[in-house]
Amino acid sequence: MRPSHIARDGSVTMVDVSSKRITSRYARAEALVRMSRAARVALQAATLPKGDAFVTAQIAGITAAKRTAELIPLTHTLPLSSVDVRFEWRRDGALRIEAEARTAARTGVEMEALVAAAVAALTIYDMSKSLDKGITIDTIRLLQKRGGKSSFEAEKHV
Amino acid sequence: MRPSHIARDGSVTMVDVSSKRITSRYARAEALVRMSRAARVALQAATLPKGDAFVTAQIAGITAAKRTAELIPLTHTLPLSSVDVRFEWRRDGALRIEAEARTAARTGVEMEALVAAAVAALTIYDMSKSLDKGITIDTIRLLQKRGGKSSFEAEKHV
Amino acid sequence: MRPSHIARDGSVTMVDVSSKRITSRYARAEALVRMSRAARVALQAATLPKGDAFVTAQIAGITAAKRTAELIPLTHTLPLSSVDVRFEWRRDGALRIEAEARTAARTGVEMEALVAAAVAALTIYDMSKSLDKGITIDTIRLLQKRGGKSSFEAEKHV
Amino acid sequence: MRPSHIARDGSVTMVDVSSKRITSRYARAEALVRMSRAARVALQAATLPKGDAFVTAQIAGITAAKRTAELIPLTHTLPLSSVDVRFEWRRDGALRIEAEARTAARTGVEMEALVAAAVAALTIYDMSKSLDKGITIDTIRLLQKRGGKSSFEAEKHV
Amino acid sequence: MRPSHIARDGSVTMVDVSSKRITSRYARAEALVRMSRAARVALQAATLPKGDAFVTAQIAGITAAKRTAELIPLTHTLPLSSVDVRFEWRRDGALRIEAEARTAARTGVEMEALVAAAVAALTIYDMSKSLDKGITIDTIRLLQKRGGKSSFEAEKHV
Amino acid sequence: MRPSHIARDGSVTMVDVSSKRITSRYARAEALVRMSRAARVALQAATLPKGDAFVTAQIAGITAAKRTAELIPLTHTLPLSSVDVRFEWRRDGALRIEAEARTAARTGVEMEALVAAAVAALTIYDMSKSLDKGITIDTIRLLQKRGGKSSFEAEKHV
Repeated sequence: MRPSHIARDGSVTMVDVSSKRITSRYARAEALVRMSRAARVALQAATLPKGDAFVTAQIAGITAAKRTAELIPLTHTLPLSSVDVRFEWRRDGALRIEAEARTAARTGVEMEALVAAAVAALTIYDMSKSLDKGITIDTIRLLQKRGGKSSFEAEKHV
Repeated sequence: MRPSHIARDGSVTMVDVSSKRITSRYARAEALVRMSRAARVALQAATLPKGDAFVTAQIAGITAAKRTAELIPLTHTLPLSSVDVRFEWRRDGALRIEAEARTAARTGVEMEALVAAAVAALTIYDMSKSLDKGITIDTIRLLQKRGGKSSFEAEKHV
Repeated sequence: MRPSHIARDGSVTMVDVSSKRITSRYARAEALVRMSRAARVALQAATLPKGDAFVTAQIAGITAAKRTAELIPLTHTLPLSSVDVRFEWRRDGALRIEAEARTAARTGVEMEALVAAAVAALTIYDMSKSLDKGITIDTIRLLQKRGGKSSFEAEKHV
Repeated sequence: MRPSHIARDGSVTMVDVSSKRITSRYARAEALVRMSRAARVALQAATLPKGDAFVTAQIAGITAAKRTAELIPLTHTLPLSSVDVRFEWRRDGALRIEAEARTAARTGVEMEALVAAAVAALTIYDMSKSLDKGITIDTIRLLQKRGGKSSFEAEKHV
Repeated sequence: MRPSHIARDGSVTMVDVSSKRITSRYARAEALVRMSRAARVALQAATLPKGDAFVTAQIAGITAAKRTAELIPLTHTLPLSSVDVRFEWRRDGALRIEAEARTAARTGVEMEALVAAAVAALTIYDMSKSLDKGITIDTIRLLQKRGGKSSFEAEKHV
Repeated sequence: MRPSHIARDGSVTMVDVSSKRITSRYARAEALVRMSRAARVALQAATLPKGDAFVTAQIAGITAAKRTAELIPLTHTLPLSSVDVRFEWRRDGALRIEAEARTAARTGVEMEALVAAAVAALTIYDMSKSLDKGITIDTIRLLQKRGGKSSFEAEKHV
């Protein structure tokens, strides 16, 4: 078991995907944003008249996903067929962000989905940080991956 | 208590910092990367001969921090005086990433430190994902902030 | 009367602002988007439940303004204090976009305001083009400029 | 009749192009720059010895077109086969900018052609603004579109 | 014999690659960095405990190669299958940087390999410039090219 | 004698410039492009009617200089006061590119001048490579530096 981007001598390498086939790829990721009860109540009240803050974070996530290859050094530039970001307040008070990415390419879109979720979460943090500097982004993780050699489905969290 | 970027009608706005003074600003943030025991052992073995994977993530974090204003829509472009990213394996098996940012500007560098930590963590994920798709980035949070109107120090985690 | 960026021999040059003083600068620009009556009715209906399309264009304009120096070759990189974009449906059926930019710098922010207005208008076009390929962006122009050697106020349109 | 990027509830979405076929796509757009007679005479005189200002605007338009997906949030990253920008002084004193874009992709290149025309026009504005702050960019519009489901040809202006 | 990007009237143009076939493309380039003996000894000593400076330059080169179309105006956006950068100290005291790029596309990857080598060399310069401002990057050149209409193999240097 | 960006343990670091004063900074760099006699004659003939190829390379160099902090990982984002690029055919047949950069900042602009020269040279290579794949960029070097702790003046080449 070896990480694909790290050679035997410890040096890093961009995986050569020349010989892989172009197939449909899909990935879904999530991020949770947790904040104090007071901050959450204030954020929910502020976003009640219009959810513009969530649209801002959605657009930030989509735009960042399209630039994944600029941010994550060993990733490949991919022509995304679509990417989207959605938000929901969970019953436990966390804001849940889910991002999806699709492409037809030689390699997967896990990083694109994760970047979309992470940047959307950071954007929510930025807009809320005057309420509570202790806001935490936790559990950025891949939920699902299809296409390519292997599929993946995350276990449900409890 | 209102989020500074969200107006009374729910619309978003970039805070006008024209009237703020240029002062020294500092922020420190962390991200934790958790993976299965097998993945951690494999990653530690792979990075033992040379820690190039960590340098890759350090450079990704530094470079992303300098581009925070492109990623997070309502942030201000800042001339960072310095930014750095460090890595340590914790006793509980998590990889801990700490990022620091400094500037002399009209607004703080919390987002720059958080972006550095988040992108470094995503880069580690990218290089390790062939080992374990279930790797999770958790607890991206601000640890400390100095300069400007208010200071902040996160509580120690238990 | 000579354009400041074009030398006597016709070659172009970035104006050296080393000797200019840092002062407060402000600029306001507008763009009008015109479409067929049917397209306008459809766009107004589609954006009635939630104005997310306008937030998308606002964020696109703000983000582009921060990157003006990458887009317009002979402009200077400026630390914007604030930038914003607003939308209104005019009585004549045109969608009016107004953008404002502020900085404290050695040169003005006219281009930043114009880029914000233009990119917001292009984003509206993109989201509406399935309704009417003949949508036209017209009258992108500077409305007001303050700070620096000269002020400017556009004449009212009739 | 609904805009393709706006869902029934008013939220925005990047159109999923996974199931579309890769075909040849072409688009042509124009922008007009209007200025006072004095400014036009001065600009024409300044660009007479060498048309470097127009090359600058051409390169700005080409470079921006390649980055359309970074500027316009819901567009797809496209591998442009070619893009070009041309300039001509019209008899009515307006500077006419025409941009063309080509690709083989799952979606059209209207936005790329429009971005090229708009950024070239803004670059001309930037280089001429010391002559006349009242310079106006008007009539940015699509002239022609081929490939994909529908073709389009703009009506001649009068 | 005419340069493909320059038309008969001296104007520049992005070559239209619409009608070219997608084939495998490969390019290899090198850059040499020369410095005073004292600077070399100091740099070798500083990089002996850990070669992080070389990883930094490797990542800078890889990242820049992926953004070639943003840097070099008339190039096409390419989906690189892989890109890498390697370093070796030559016997004559020069630091030799070799970069390789691969793609399946309608046009070659010479510029991507050259950009990777050049930016890696500039990064080495940046990190070493406190030792010796007279460090020189010389002999950035293409070593090999395969795919497309013509192949190329550089002559050995003596 | 130690490189400022490399710590005692071999790790890299962005130099903290917080405590440095803002002063005027200037740097001048050059790059030479060498090609076969036949390629030079063809390039000179092609650029004779209009020097658009040189304007393209000038704009590429200026634009890249403004983005130096994105390309070279450990550099600081600087607000350039001006940057320019010039070209001349030397008597020995080499094309000489000279770039100048100015700022008022806490750190120097050597990298900005070097990036401008290097990217302008790569752009010339790109536009000429159909003439001669063996074109070589050599002697990218700093010519002069003023401002900050130390000045520098390169020795004349022979």
